[in-house]
Amino acid sequence: MSQPTYNFCAGPAALPKAVLEQAQKELLDWQGLGVSVMEISHRSAEYQTMANKAEANFRQLMNIGDDHAVLFMHGGASLQFSNIPMALLQHHSADSNLQADYLCNGIWSSKAAKEAARFGKVNEIDMVEIDQQGNRSLVDWSKCQTSTNPIYTHYTPNETIEGLRFESLPQTSTPLVVDLSSCILSEQINVNDFDLIYAGAQKNIGPAGMTIVIVKRSLFEKMNFDKTPNIFNYQEQAKQGSMINTPATYTWYLASLVFEWLIEQGGVKQMEKFGIEKSGLLYRCIDEDGFYHNPVAIKDRSRMNIPFILKDEELNDKFLQQAKQANLVGLKGHRSVGGMRASLYNSMPVEGVEALTHFMREFKSENG
Amino acid sequence: MSQPTYNFCAGPAALPKAVLEQAQKELLDWQGLGVSVMEISHRSAEYQTMANKAEANFRQLMNIGDDHAVLFMHGGASLQFSNIPMALLQHHSADSNLQADYLCNGIWSSKAAKEAARFGKVNEIDMVEIDQQGNRSLVDWSKCQTSTNPIYTHYTPNETIEGLRFESLPQTSTPLVVDLSSCILSEQINVNDFDLIYAGAQKNIGPAGMTIVIVKRSLFEKMNFDKTPNIFNYQEQAKQGSMINTPATYTWYLASLVFEWLIEQGGVKQMEKFGIEKSGLLYRCIDEDGFYHNPVAIKDRSRMNIPFILKDEELNDKFLQQAKQANLVGLKGHRSVGGMRASLYNSMPVEGVEALTHFMREFKSENG
Repeated sequence: MSQPTYNFCAGPAALPKAVLEQAQKELLDWQGLGVSVMEISHRSAEYQTMANKAEANFRQLMNIGDDHAVLFMHGGASLQFSNIPMALLQHHSADSNLQADYLCNGIWSSKAAKEAARFGKVNEIDMVEIDQQGNRSLVDWSKCQTSTNPIYTHYTPNETIEGLRFESLPQTSTPLVVDLSSCILSEQINVNDFDLIYAGAQKNIGPAGMTIVIVKRSLFEKMNFDKTPNIFNYQEQAKQGSMINTPATYTWYLASLVFEWLIEQGGVKQMEKFGIEKSGLLYRCIDEDGFYHNPVAIKDRSRMNIPFILKDEELNDKFLQQAKQANLVGLKGHRSVGGMRASLYNSMPVEGVEALTHFMREFKSENG
Repeated sequence: MSQPTYNFCAGPAALPKAVLEQAQKELLDWQGLGVSVMEISHRSAEYQTMANKAEANFRQLMNIGDDHAVLFMHGGASLQFSNIPMALLQHHSADSNLQADYLCNGIWSSKAAKEAARFGKVNEIDMVEIDQQGNRSLVDWSKCQTSTNPIYTHYTPNETIEGLRFESLPQTSTPLVVDLSSCILSEQINVNDFDLIYAGAQKNIGPAGMTIVIVKRSLFEKMNFDKTPNIFNYQEQAKQGSMINTPATYTWYLASLVFEWLIEQGGVKQMEKFGIEKSGLLYRCIDEDGFYHNPVAIKDRSRMNIPFILKDEELNDKFLQQAKQANLVGLKGHRSVGGMRASLYNSMPVEGVEALTHFMREFKSENG
């Protein structure tokens, strides 16, 4: 009964408790200024120092060099679905030979492709097949129908709703654009493999309403901002430190606390270990017998978002209700697929997954 | 010395202390859920109830009827500078006779005009003249060079940097688009006079990173969203309750607390009275003799943002430094104009203005 609440929400997701406690402590008086950090100018010396420190810590965590600019942009990843093709594809729309490849492995990547198609020609590539066990499985790169010379290739290494994860990189030499929203900072990547990385904040970074964009400066040459909102001119934002206008200052501040917490915890390397451990615990519990089921091929399973169903779907509501009573919240599956989903972002401690698997086994013994 | 801190920052601006205290109290446990409001799904019943209540309270405060949709959009007002012409003007760009009128009375309205001109034809109308006293003054509506039949007329009733305020409405029968960022909820307006109202949150609504848009539903017919980011499709956002994607959930929540606070305080009518009283106090202090000066014609003075200079500009730094020591912060003028600026948004109590004028008179007696 006295168990702490564990929040498995896919996003807006749980933040580290230590971060929320610090935010609470200094909500009315930040750095002895007598006012909240959300009440001061983004151009004040105090705010600028914090903002720059946040970027430096983020660069350290992701091992980002000077070839890439780091931007703290307004809105969620869905706004990037529009702004990427507006900058990279739109000015080529008169030439029907020039297109972008979109690898589609779930709802979010398909949405990105659909939005891009409003601004130029898109080659939508279905990356999901059903394997012999009836589970969703990712198509092998060698069978992937890519274009000859796409302007860029867009992909989503981790699909939040379906719980599908690419283990390896797409085999392409074209500029690679990647939506890391639901896996950023959870596993080590080589930023130099990518030309543009974006990630909505509300999973592993902070609250909703901000997106971090990491863009290779050499990509600016291929962009055209004539018909892009000025605020979404990546090159200009890079020049102006993401402050063409007032950024989402409080979200940026909370992100800075998350980055500090991550460094204290041992950085992305440690998060990757935890991610393997946590997802391993849960998949083991799901796979024990047929009571629970995760409909994804083992090779393509997500470490961050783990959807599962009950063999007897009539028990879904009972499961969710009793889980909530056991302080295990945010387990309802996405409205488009139903069932359950446990999101195991960085802020989820191993103890939370242990509590969940303990509950799942008890529920099974009572209802199996 | 034990005087509380008063924050005159133009934006991100001070929030009501009672709002911050409530936010602090429930930061880690909202409505007994055991988690923060920023950690839950925007589609959860609890969040939806709060979000709907916020809209209802906002409608009550502004007396908004069903003819207008209320949207809680991503980003600041500067994103609306782009999105309004993208929706209303861009699809007419082939016809050189179709243009929008932009009334320019300061830096922000000029920025809006400049951004609109990237998407269509704009008639930029200079609304500022220098009067016989050498002060900035607004051009009379009768002398205003409007187009014959503009697609829409855009104006900015309160210019935050220059401290200029239109007392009356533009004389036009065309759709009226208005940037209320720095005066929304501070004085009574008739929403039916306007076709599209927008206001960045970070002055009278909440923290930065969200903009409220109030749009007459009949205006949707004149809009075209073919080349507008999907997230900025006003009609679709109206249909989906501003949740095409995850909104800035924590900002929306803080706005809901501000709206409740405003209703408790007596609503916009009371805020208008306070605004007249507070600005009156400060202007009286500025006008006492030549030591301070506000460079705006009396008829056009803002109630929200009051720029002032010292006759001896060499004293500026000393003034700002000593003001800060007296817990009067955020008084530095905008970097484009220098000097001082006191912003008297709704959350500034009369006592704060009294403390400022007291300080100003002491400073004068010591340095005059």
